[in-house]
Amino acid sequence: MPLLKDLNTENITENTILTNSSCEDLRMKYLMERLVSHLHDFARETRLSTREWMSGIQFLTVVGQTCDEVRQEFILLSDILGLSLLIDAIDHPKPPHATEGTVLGPFHTHEAEEMSHGDKMSSDPDGEPLLVLCTLKDSAGRPIEGCKIDIWETDSTGRYDVQHADRKGPDGRCVMYSDKDGIFWFKAIKPISYPIPHDGPVGKLLKALRRHPYRPSHMHFMFEKPGYDNLITALYARGDPYETSDAVFGVKDSLVVDYTQTDREIAEKYDVEEGTLLMTYDFVLVSDEEASDLREQKSRKALEALGRKVKFLEGLPVPDVD
Amino acid sequence: MPLLKDLNTENITENTILTNSSCEDLRMKYLMERLVSHLHDFARETRLSTREWMSGIQFLTVVGQTCDEVRQEFILLSDILGLSLLIDAIDHPKPPHATEGTVLGPFHTHEAEEMSHGDKMSSDPDGEPLLVLCTLKDSAGRPIEGCKIDIWETDSTGRYDVQHADRKGPDGRCVMYSDKDGIFWFKAIKPISYPIPHDGPVGKLLKALRRHPYRPSHMHFMFEKPGYDNLITALYARGDPYETSDAVFGVKDSLVVDYTQTDREIAEKYDVEEGTLLMTYDFVLVSDEEASDLREQKSRKALEALGRKVKFLEGLPVPDVD
Repeated sequence: MPLLKDLNTENITENTILTNSSCEDLRMKYLMERLVSHLHDFARETRLSTREWMSGIQFLTVVGQTCDEVRQEFILLSDILGLSLLIDAIDHPKPPHATEGTVLGPFHTHEAEEMSHGDKMSSDPDGEPLLVLCTLKDSAGRPIEGCKIDIWETDSTGRYDVQHADRKGPDGRCVMYSDKDGIFWFKAIKPISYPIPHDGPVGKLLKALRRHPYRPSHMHFMFEKPGYDNLITALYARGDPYETSDAVFGVKDSLVVDYTQTDREIAEKYDVEEGTLLMTYDFVLVSDEEASDLREQKSRKALEALGRKVKFLEGLPVPDVD
Repeated sequence: MPLLKDLNTENITENTILTNSSCEDLRMKYLMERLVSHLHDFARETRLSTREWMSGIQFLTVVGQTCDEVRQEFILLSDILGLSLLIDAIDHPKPPHATEGTVLGPFHTHEAEEMSHGDKMSSDPDGEPLLVLCTLKDSAGRPIEGCKIDIWETDSTGRYDVQHADRKGPDGRCVMYSDKDGIFWFKAIKPISYPIPHDGPVGKLLKALRRHPYRPSHMHFMFEKPGYDNLITALYARGDPYETSDAVFGVKDSLVVDYTQTDREIAEKYDVEEGTLLMTYDFVLVSDEEASDLREQKSRKALEALGRKVKFLEGLPVPDVD
């Protein structure tokens, strides 16, 4: 252990890292080493003042205290700083043919009703009906059966169920499973673009940065099946005014869709009125193996660029020190 | 503004920074640029997983929710990560002859009683009496008169007044002023080494890192007088078992003192029993001008090492871009 005395701007970092180095969890030790390095470099490079440091302390405190059972302000903060998008990209790398992922956002819940194909997942009478027809395949083009799919979207006012103080239960969200042909379909409403919650500290930060809080309209999807890499993604409506200025950086061109109108044949087959808005999409999941190979390849490259030999512990990289 | 689409591990950082660049406050813009860079580099270098990111989100949330009127868990977190010590060193640089600063800690309050020289600032009957005799001078050796001095210390159980749920009011703390000879003196008790609050998330983190939560015994001092750089410091007892392993990195050799025993002459002069423990110290404050010159010099050096020309806005550096 280091002798902790006479620490100053030049030696505090190495000594903090040494002090943390008794940690037996090598991954945590590596995370703490990088965290302390970056935190200290940030302060040194900006010459952070005591007053600014205290503003930061107070800001983070309010962010924590704005969180409750249905609001996660730290996720919002991560979202508007581009961190959430980055983490998804690191943790779920995709080969070119696979469906891209995007930010989870703070509105997923674990209490959605399980529904059957064709069910209506929104009870909002003011929403514009939207028929959604999808397929789910693996990267070799084979249908994936029995995949659990979480779907959630806004109501016609651009809000999720959990944003209504008087809500009775889950709405605008459901869980369903793909059939033997990889098909799943349901009746929804057209999602609406909306501001992320901006009455808290994250909203104040956006304002100070002269940024708007809006997200283009989208519908969220999350796919989970053993053997496949979890896919968290969303489909965005082409032409939305916020299509290229999403407050949380989530839009990808491959996830932008055109709504069309159902013709008579489709309308009859799926029991909707002719002319109802239609969204279709063919999702492609990668296997756990494809994802972990790609993740390992990229991790190795990133850590070697730092001049570190790498080994992997439960799929996560740590420096390989002798 | 950038077109925010198809963001990935390689381009998210520059685009997040561009998105924040409409901010008119140049200092805030610089802070955000460095914050986003370091946050993203941290994630990229560690290949942070979604699960680890979520643990971080949950950890910070609990830290925020552990804060209340008398507990500041984010300051504790900053303390145990070495950040608080670093910020003090950056913001209050000291020439060699001046009294060094150290961490403020989370136990300073603004409700201490104003006392006169010779008053007892602790009512704890179990504390070992300690006579404290100090002088306060500028860097040319001239006495500083009328400086406001906040002093605070633990009781005989190693706790500050605010850590007692049933406390009646301030105790073990006071505010006093130096006299025309720069002298101030008071009766206290011997401070006791203690663990920082470790029943919350910061305590759990220390445990995971196999670190103890103890601070060596010390007495806090804060000096404020217009024209002089604020000094936040503390005097540590030599020989304390935690002298070289302070959980918050605060000990400096120049701040470690030996307690002696009062002889008859001193005891009579200051109205204490002969043999009472005695602590003496000669504090030296630097002027605002000395501090800001040194701060600017060091800031310039630090930012130029980053390859940036610097200008100063209200004493704080920002890159000087044309």
